[in-house]
Amino acid sequence: MPKLVICGSMALDTIETPYGKRQNIIGGSASYAALAAAKFCPVGIISSVGNDFDLKRFSSVGKRLDLTGVTILGRTLRWSGRYDYAMQEAKTRSTKLNSMAHFRPTLPAAYQSAGFYLLANADPRAQLELLRQVKPKGQFIAADTMNFWIFRERAKLLKVIKRIHLLCLNENEARQLLETPNLVQAGQRVLALGPAFVIIKKGEHGALLFSRTGIFAAAGYPLESVIDPTGAGDALAGALMGYLASQIRLSSTLTVSEPLVRKALVIGCTLASFTAEAFGVENLVAVGKEEIRNRYEVYQKIHAF
Amino acid sequence: MPKLVICGSMALDTIETPYGKRQNIIGGSASYAALAAAKFCPVGIISSVGNDFDLKRFSSVGKRLDLTGVTILGRTLRWSGRYDYAMQEAKTRSTKLNSMAHFRPTLPAAYQSAGFYLLANADPRAQLELLRQVKPKGQFIAADTMNFWIFRERAKLLKVIKRIHLLCLNENEARQLLETPNLVQAGQRVLALGPAFVIIKKGEHGALLFSRTGIFAAAGYPLESVIDPTGAGDALAGALMGYLASQIRLSSTLTVSEPLVRKALVIGCTLASFTAEAFGVENLVAVGKEEIRNRYEVYQKIHAF
Repeated sequence: MPKLVICGSMALDTIETPYGKRQNIIGGSASYAALAAAKFCPVGIISSVGNDFDLKRFSSVGKRLDLTGVTILGRTLRWSGRYDYAMQEAKTRSTKLNSMAHFRPTLPAAYQSAGFYLLANADPRAQLELLRQVKPKGQFIAADTMNFWIFRERAKLLKVIKRIHLLCLNENEARQLLETPNLVQAGQRVLALGPAFVIIKKGEHGALLFSRTGIFAAAGYPLESVIDPTGAGDALAGALMGYLASQIRLSSTLTVSEPLVRKALVIGCTLASFTAEAFGVENLVAVGKEEIRNRYEVYQKIHAF
Repeated sequence: MPKLVICGSMALDTIETPYGKRQNIIGGSASYAALAAAKFCPVGIISSVGNDFDLKRFSSVGKRLDLTGVTILGRTLRWSGRYDYAMQEAKTRSTKLNSMAHFRPTLPAAYQSAGFYLLANADPRAQLELLRQVKPKGQFIAADTMNFWIFRERAKLLKVIKRIHLLCLNENEARQLLETPNLVQAGQRVLALGPAFVIIKKGEHGALLFSRTGIFAAAGYPLESVIDPTGAGDALAGALMGYLASQIRLSSTLTVSEPLVRKALVIGCTLASFTAEAFGVENLVAVGKEEIRNRYEVYQKIHAF
């Protein structure tokens, strides 16, 4: 039975960076998040793909993935993007939503006992649809989003934010959504909307965690080689939630402490760093427990003074 | 007798940000660095100003500043710049080098016993000129620079870098100088040129410290209000060197340990954060030992996991 349910997109990506090109590789927010989370606990995915997506191969690359919640319809979402020399943000060449266009998530009965939910980047209407199906019994719910939805579905997105415990978004999204250039102000404005935790992801510069008890500033893991940053933020959120789910027992008094979220965020940064070191989900699939532990220990050393 | 000698520019700045405008306020790399450093040890300045610079007032706002090395010639360097809403980088409106145009630093006899030197941002020809005058007896020498000199005086700048122990520069300068978008590669390439330590400043995102023993990633101090980031990087370098100078006795076996540089860098980030919270050197002048200590302790809390 999955401890963590991840709802989001599954896609076939075509990515070009100064280091090469890959066509129709596994992509999508739910794919990255689930492969990262599954390093820590059993994960149930809710998404939609087409017949052109090799689900069998996907479930074999990621262990402990339950695909009961993945519906098959038409063709898979296709995204094509390009990174320039500085490897900061991808320039989208084309997006074809295909099977994700009218995605209506359905929570399978087998997922009902999960204590953790991650609404990975997707249409806020789909995120709300899933929230309606979650029977409240103390679950811890996180959501991610992107600039597209901030512009198109701000009201719906704010509804999602009111219902969740942790919001995860990147720095430009935070500035857009909260209408301030200052990240500390942005973080605090999100807390005022409801979530107990806010994580602002800053790519190579790490992340900021805001909560009622203060701020945690996590530096980015210094990478000598960035091959493809696609999905690193999704992997961060997935690993963070997967780690939390592995550490906490679901009960009516489920509490997620701030120190535990700090540790989970560092583990998230670690998985994000592995993700960026190779194309697509290549590294996320390949990396083992010991490598994760080793990098976590290196991170501790580079962060201490 | 100064423990730390700081050579660089002194200026009168006109700065406009979304929070207001200030005309002809104290500016320049040496001014910011010296006011920050003087919180920790006696500082001797080497620079050049005009008759229009109120040196008396300057020496009264900063305690423990020795101005023997400041020559008076013509008019003071004038810089005018503007920050937009995002408060990232200043757009220069005008620069008149004036008295700094033909600045030839001279090391006063009273400064000869100093163990620490900071060549703050200035023409690398002036930095080399000063290096020629330093009688080698185990001093620890740091230098800062900027994009202007990387383009105009690359060869001279590389000569400076070969002679120093710590190079301090911001992330875009690092990318330009070392010809790589990757900061880890940039840092390691500087180490290969000679310096034992390299600090890459990343503004609100903190700084990276590179040395033979590894990397230290210092997150930026999260500021809710950034009024004017001018000089924050100079204050960082000044505070870092002032703190080191206050902790280490000059001897033929002067050694600066990596853990001490980590701590000094965090103190530098602390002073940089104060600087950005007000126009010009306002906060740098006003802030007391207790406020610095308190913010250092807050920084420890936001950085730990």
